[in-house]
Amino acid sequence: MAVLTPQHEDFPRWYQDVLTKAKLAETGPARGTMVIRPNGYAIWERMQAEVDGRIKAAGAQNAYFPLLIPMDFFEREAEHIEGFSPELAVVTHGGGKELTEPLAIRPTSEAVFGEYMSKWIDSYRDLPLLLNQWSNVVRWELRPRIFLRTTEFLWQEGHTAHVTESDARQYARGILHDVYQDFMCNVLAMPVIVGRKTVKERFAGAANTMTCEGVMRDGKALQMATSHELGQRFSRAFNISYSNAEGSTELAWTTSWGASTRMLGGLIMGHGDDYGLVLPPVLAPIQVVVVVVKDGDGEVTRAATSLVESLTNLGVRARLDANVASGFGWRATEWDLQGVPIRVELGPRDLAENSALLYRRDTRDKTTVHLDTAVEDARRLIDRIQTDMFTSATARRDAFITDCTTLEEARDAAQTGLARLPWAAIGPSGEGKLATGGLTVRCLHRSDGSLPETDDDSGALAYVARAY
Amino acid sequence: MAVLTPQHEDFPRWYQDVLTKAKLAETGPARGTMVIRPNGYAIWERMQAEVDGRIKAAGAQNAYFPLLIPMDFFEREAEHIEGFSPELAVVTHGGGKELTEPLAIRPTSEAVFGEYMSKWIDSYRDLPLLLNQWSNVVRWELRPRIFLRTTEFLWQEGHTAHVTESDARQYARGILHDVYQDFMCNVLAMPVIVGRKTVKERFAGAANTMTCEGVMRDGKALQMATSHELGQRFSRAFNISYSNAEGSTELAWTTSWGASTRMLGGLIMGHGDDYGLVLPPVLAPIQVVVVVVKDGDGEVTRAATSLVESLTNLGVRARLDANVASGFGWRATEWDLQGVPIRVELGPRDLAENSALLYRRDTRDKTTVHLDTAVEDARRLIDRIQTDMFTSATARRDAFITDCTTLEEARDAAQTGLARLPWAAIGPSGEGKLATGGLTVRCLHRSDGSLPETDDDSGALAYVARAY
Repeated sequence: MAVLTPQHEDFPRWYQDVLTKAKLAETGPARGTMVIRPNGYAIWERMQAEVDGRIKAAGAQNAYFPLLIPMDFFEREAEHIEGFSPELAVVTHGGGKELTEPLAIRPTSEAVFGEYMSKWIDSYRDLPLLLNQWSNVVRWELRPRIFLRTTEFLWQEGHTAHVTESDARQYARGILHDVYQDFMCNVLAMPVIVGRKTVKERFAGAANTMTCEGVMRDGKALQMATSHELGQRFSRAFNISYSNAEGSTELAWTTSWGASTRMLGGLIMGHGDDYGLVLPPVLAPIQVVVVVVKDGDGEVTRAATSLVESLTNLGVRARLDANVASGFGWRATEWDLQGVPIRVELGPRDLAENSALLYRRDTRDKTTVHLDTAVEDARRLIDRIQTDMFTSATARRDAFITDCTTLEEARDAAQTGLARLPWAAIGPSGEGKLATGGLTVRCLHRSDGSLPETDDDSGALAYVARAY
Repeated sequence: MAVLTPQHEDFPRWYQDVLTKAKLAETGPARGTMVIRPNGYAIWERMQAEVDGRIKAAGAQNAYFPLLIPMDFFEREAEHIEGFSPELAVVTHGGGKELTEPLAIRPTSEAVFGEYMSKWIDSYRDLPLLLNQWSNVVRWELRPRIFLRTTEFLWQEGHTAHVTESDARQYARGILHDVYQDFMCNVLAMPVIVGRKTVKERFAGAANTMTCEGVMRDGKALQMATSHELGQRFSRAFNISYSNAEGSTELAWTTSWGASTRMLGGLIMGHGDDYGLVLPPVLAPIQVVVVVVKDGDGEVTRAATSLVESLTNLGVRARLDANVASGFGWRATEWDLQGVPIRVELGPRDLAENSALLYRRDTRDKTTVHLDTAVEDARRLIDRIQTDMFTSATARRDAFITDCTTLEEARDAAQTGLARLPWAAIGPSGEGKLATGGLTVRCLHRSDGSLPETDDDSGALAYVARAY
C-alpha cells in the first residue's frame, strides 16, 4: 500500500497521485490544459448522462452555440466583461491572415445565447425559452490544477429566458435543487451545502448566484455547480424582449447555470481514501467487478463469467477480471485505485465450498457469501453502499463544521474546516478581512436551510472556509 | 405548400430553407460558424448515441484531449502541417498578455494524441491502444455552408496505435465498415459508396484514406466519414514506439477516423423533399407523433394520450400533439417539415368510427386503421419505413450513376450525377483535368465492391462527381 501518498501526510500530493496512478487525467501540452484519460472520461460520461436526464426533465433542450465569439459581444454587459476580460483567450489569426476583428474563445456563453434569444423571441408565447449546451470553455488560469481549475474545461451551461422575475427565479432554483443538488446527493453521494453567494462572490453580471458547495476530505470547500438569476441585465444588453398579451414590449428575465469537469475533482477529494478513488455505485462506470483469484482448468472463470452475465441481466454494470496471468494482489490494488464499489472474488477453494468473497470498496469490508446468492447479495449491496457513502460523507461534513459567533472564531475554525456563523457578524467588511487570510464566504442560507431572498437577509448564516 | 423553395427550382436554396424553416441551424456571429438549434441538435444526439455505441463495440474508449495545441506539434509531420496550416485559427493572447508561443485551435488531433500515445505506450502489451473523442474542431473556411463546411464543427475523432501494419489496416477497415457504413446504411438509411481515396484526395499525412460517400438528391456526392491508415508517419514524428517480445524497439502503426455534423447535411440532402426533412425512423428523435385533429370534450385527447403511452411502453419514441388551439393544417405542415416518420391523426369522427389515420412521411401515404390496432400498425410501420427508405435511396443513387469508359464521357455524366469508370482511364493526370471542371474522383473500389489494396489497383473503378 505504498501506491499513494497518504492523505494525512500531503493531501494535494495524494490528489495528484490518484490522478496519475488511477490514470484519470494529466497535464496537457499548453499551459493549464488537461488530457482526460479513458478512466476519468468514463466517469464524466456517467455524470453527463445523469445531469443531462435531469436537465431534460426540467424542460430544457440541448443546442450548440459557437466556440468563437466576437469581442464586442462581451463588452455589451459591463460587469460581465469586467469579470471575464482577464481570463480571455483571443484568436487574432485565421486562415493565415490577421483577423480584422479578434475573436474570444468562449469563457461562458451568456453573450452569444443572448444575441440569438433576442432573434428567436417575439411574443410571450415564445417564453419560457429553455436551452442548454454541453461544451468546452477556456478561461486563462494562473494557478491551474487538474479538474479544479484548468484553462480549458468541459461543462454544461444552461440559458433561459422568462416572462417574469418570479418565473426566472423559480426556474433557477429548480435547477439548483432538482438538477444539481439532487444529482450530487443521490448520484455522487455528496451532501452539498446549498446557499446564496455573497455579492462579492457572485458571477460576473448576475443579480443572484446560488451554489452547491462540497466539503472535501481535507476540510476545504469546493464550488460544485452554480445557478444564476441574471435579472434583466443581459436582456437589456442584448435586447431580449417580447411583446406581452397587450401588445407592448417588455424585457425578458434570464437565468444561467453550469456544472463542469470540476465535479470530478470534487468526487475524488470528497470520497477518495489512501487506497484511491471511492465511487458511489449509482455513478460508477463499473459497479461490480468479478475477479478470478486464480484458476486451474477454467472452472472458476466459467463460474465468474456466469456471475457477470447474471449481474448484467439485472441491469448491473458488471465486469469480469479473469486476468490470472497477473497476480491477484496487483489486480486488487488496481480495482481499489479505480474505486470500483464492489468486488466479488472467486478462487478454486471458494468454488469448492460454493462460496465467494464480497468486498465493498467504501469500508473495505469482506464477507463470505453463498455462491448461489452472490448475485443478489451484490445487487443489494449496491443500494446499501450508496446510502452508507452519503451517510458517512454527511458525518464527515458535519464534523468539519464549527458554529461560531465572531469573525475571529470563524477565522480560527476555518483553518481546518468550515465555520458557520451569522452573516450579520461578517458583512461585506468582514468578508474583505477574511480574504486577506485566504478565506471566503462560501454561501449563505437561513437556519432552516432555505435560500435567503436578499443580500442582507438578517437570518442568514454564512459558511466560511478555505476553498479550491 | 409554399413553405420551401422546390428542390428542382433551386436545390441550394431549398437546403437553406429547410435549415431555417425546420429551425435546424443558423449562421453564427463569427464568420463560418453555426448555431445548432434544438431541432438540429436532437438529431445530432441520436447520431452520436448510435455511432458511439458502435465505436465502443469496436473496443475504443472515449477520452478528451485539449482544444489548444502548440504550433510546433503540427510542424513535426511535414504533409500534415502543409495540409492544415492554411486552415488554422491561432490564439496569440491569453489572460491579457501576448503568448510567447502561439497556440492553434485543433483542426484535428493526430498531433496531440501522438504526443500522449508516445508517453503511454511502453511495450507491445500496451497495444492496440484504441482511443476516441467527441469534440469541436476549427478549420478556417473560405466558402462556409451550414453543416457541410463550417469553421467550427462537431465530430468524433478516433486515434489508434497497433503492433503491425496489418492489424492497423484491419482496424481502420473495421471502423469504416462496422461503424460508419453500418450506421449510415442501417440508421441513416443511406446507401453510401465505400471506397479508397486517390492520392490527391487523401487526408494530409495519411498512407491511405477510405471513405463513405453519400449521394444527395441533386446528384452531388458528399463525403460522410473517413478512416485513415497513417502508416508509421505519425509514429515517427511523435516517437510512438514499443518494445516487442524480444525487447527491441519498434515504431507503432497508427490510424485515425472521423465523422462530423456534416452528416446532418447529408441526411437533409439525401432524404429531404419539397415538404422538408424526411427522417429514417431508427434515427428520428420523435418516431411517431399522435396528432389530435380537433377535440370537443377532451375525449379525443384522452384516446391520443393513451396511444402515446402504449407506444412509449413498446419503446417507441412517441409524442403527443394536442395543440388544438393551432389549426391542424399548420401543425401537419410543421411535422412534415421536421420529418417525423409517422403521424397518427385522430379526430372526433375517427374516434366515433373507432379508427385513426396513419400517415407515413416518406411516401406521404395515408391509410385508415382500426384504433385497436393503431399502436401495433404504427410500430410495424417503423420497420417498414426504415427498409423502404433505404430501398428508394438506393434506387435514386443507382439512377444517378452512369457507367462510362472515357474521361470525356465521365465529364459529361458527372454534370448531373456520378460517373463510374475504370481508374485506369483517368489516372492522376486525368484527375487534374477533371478538377479544372470542378469534378473530383470521390473514391475507388473494385467491381465486386471491395477496397483496392494499392493506389494503382488495375481493377479499380472510380466514381467521378461534383461534391459538397
